[in-house]
Amino acid sequence: MYDIQTPALLLDRPRLERNIARLKARLDGLGVGLRPHMKTAKSVDVLRLVGAEAITVSTLAEAEAFAAAGATDILYAVGLAPAKIGRVRAIRARGIELSVIVDNVAAAEAIAASVGPPVPVLIEIDTDGCRAGVSPDHVSTLVAIGRALKGGAELRGVMTHGGGSYDEPGEAAHIAAAEQERAGVVAAAEALRAAGLPCPIVSVGSTPTAYAARDLRGVTEVRAGVYMFGDLVQAGLGVIGVDEIALSVLASVIGHRRDKGWILVDAGWTALSRDRGTAGQDVDQGYGLVCAADGTPWSGVIVESVNQEHGIIAVRPGSGATLPELAVGDQVRILPNHACATATQHDRYHVIGADGAAEAVWPRFGGW
Amino acid sequence: MYDIQTPALLLDRPRLERNIARLKARLDGLGVGLRPHMKTAKSVDVLRLVGAEAITVSTLAEAEAFAAAGATDILYAVGLAPAKIGRVRAIRARGIELSVIVDNVAAAEAIAASVGPPVPVLIEIDTDGCRAGVSPDHVSTLVAIGRALKGGAELRGVMTHGGGSYDEPGEAAHIAAAEQERAGVVAAAEALRAAGLPCPIVSVGSTPTAYAARDLRGVTEVRAGVYMFGDLVQAGLGVIGVDEIALSVLASVIGHRRDKGWILVDAGWTALSRDRGTAGQDVDQGYGLVCAADGTPWSGVIVESVNQEHGIIAVRPGSGATLPELAVGDQVRILPNHACATATQHDRYHVIGADGAAEAVWPRFGGW
Repeated sequence: MYDIQTPALLLDRPRLERNIARLKARLDGLGVGLRPHMKTAKSVDVLRLVGAEAITVSTLAEAEAFAAAGATDILYAVGLAPAKIGRVRAIRARGIELSVIVDNVAAAEAIAASVGPPVPVLIEIDTDGCRAGVSPDHVSTLVAIGRALKGGAELRGVMTHGGGSYDEPGEAAHIAAAEQERAGVVAAAEALRAAGLPCPIVSVGSTPTAYAARDLRGVTEVRAGVYMFGDLVQAGLGVIGVDEIALSVLASVIGHRRDKGWILVDAGWTALSRDRGTAGQDVDQGYGLVCAADGTPWSGVIVESVNQEHGIIAVRPGSGATLPELAVGDQVRILPNHACATATQHDRYHVIGADGAAEAVWPRFGGW
Repeated sequence: MYDIQTPALLLDRPRLERNIARLKARLDGLGVGLRPHMKTAKSVDVLRLVGAEAITVSTLAEAEAFAAAGATDILYAVGLAPAKIGRVRAIRARGIELSVIVDNVAAAEAIAASVGPPVPVLIEIDTDGCRAGVSPDHVSTLVAIGRALKGGAELRGVMTHGGGSYDEPGEAAHIAAAEQERAGVVAAAEALRAAGLPCPIVSVGSTPTAYAARDLRGVTEVRAGVYMFGDLVQAGLGVIGVDEIALSVLASVIGHRRDKGWILVDAGWTALSRDRGTAGQDVDQGYGLVCAADGTPWSGVIVESVNQEHGIIAVRPGSGATLPELAVGDQVRILPNHACATATQHDRYHVIGADGAAEAVWPRFGGW
């Protein structure tokens, strides 16, 4: 029983430290740098544990906060909206090596036309059709963007996000996804170089491909973020084990509906998020997998549905599990589908040490 | 074009004021009090517009903040976890008439055993099988809870939430749901009174049933929250029109994928939430309906998918719509599926006046 008002976000520090060390060691072995993505953690205390000066962010609010906390080399890895150029320049004026990304000539021209020292820009490459980016085959577009990056902008390289690695579980699929990610972005870099343009940085990244990559020839850095915390989506993909997930939501039992096979807790979507990332996986974990307060999972016991401040715990159909005996007031922990989404719902981490006791509170920020 | 960094939450003040006045007038006509649910707004500025001293909240953090802002009579409408009794007593010690709810003997006994002046307690009644509460048929349980409320607790009445009203669109369905909600909670009140227990408060509430109720005999108050802002779920249910939705997310175009029929914007699930409340309705609005920056909706143009900071705008299949012509940097507004969920992702409202100009920033709080 933790003396913490529920719902609350727990962060298992020993697991976090092991997860941070594991991917670092793996990429060290491949001879490639890691540029951790801080969008999952949004915590300067986690940045301190990660120990990186070169990081990735998903918002300029992150760039501002992590720059103030000691990061010196920051990649803002969401296509730049032109109205944000002023903030980018303000951060760079503080001596931070902030770079941005674009995937179109209009955004490149907007940065080029802005007044001030050149802002480093990477061209976003689409290697799997999931989201943004220029296909490596569209050489004329790549070169047009590269040539537009002059004046207030400077072409610094290419980057891609292998989000397609989330579509299929298993190491073989992720090895293939990593090679597709590598080959695509390296081809784009070579196309730019063939046109006489510079391309010193070749950046890839997703947690599944970062773990699976066997060969990163031509790549200069890997970005990943979820690997620090882990979650049920990563476990369902086979990237980590459930016992490596460092993040959970502490909740209290507030009632039972024995006629329906439900236990009600005080963690709804405000605490867990509405993310249903495991819905398409082999094991649908609902809104999260339920554990005892000490973190031991009850396999097959999930949060079946959520309202704003209510979670309904039930047995996953077909799991053969039975509901644990829990009294009103008992605490449980809920492992998240998606660490980024669940963490976003909270403004602090309650840090749990090796002995299972709460040892610190780390602030967490949001916003843009 | 708003001079606001995107993504950002916009609140249309004239629509908000009309929505607040409309439900108030309707319930005045039925002779029943309205106890607005502030869980959607979480803003003391909105409380000021609502002008109520008697409110409903979903967290003790709301109770604390709204008490500090002038609310004097607060119902905390989520089953009480016993570890929260101390905070309830601390709020009451400030002279606030804070009442709580329970649906089981264990929680009732925990409050009764706590030391201090009696805390007013409502028994939660289940009138549609959606969530928590005691069925009105379970008279022995109702009476057992009522009798347990002594010592540090005092039975004050019954309450229910007609969440089943969200299952079916149309006024006829909501009129029936409202009558089911009314009849169930009044039956529970009568069962308690027949056992010689007091039951002065009989509280019902959901936005669809609050609008639909034709007869509220035996009910002393109605709770509703989403009615202030409105959202696509309410519009899909036929409770409000799309042109009455007061909340939207301002986003900027960051790129195009013309090969895929996509426009990319800088509003992902951190700004819109992962709520897919219209997925089961006749018109699935994806992660939100897209409007021009002035708020004019493009029917059939939706946010088809979201990542953390990316939204992908596309035409809704079968809608016959075409994508609007938008340039990189253009702003759009996105109407939310679920106002509560989208608002939760933000820490401030950018308030838009009758002339469409941004006129104020109102802080919004979260947490528990």
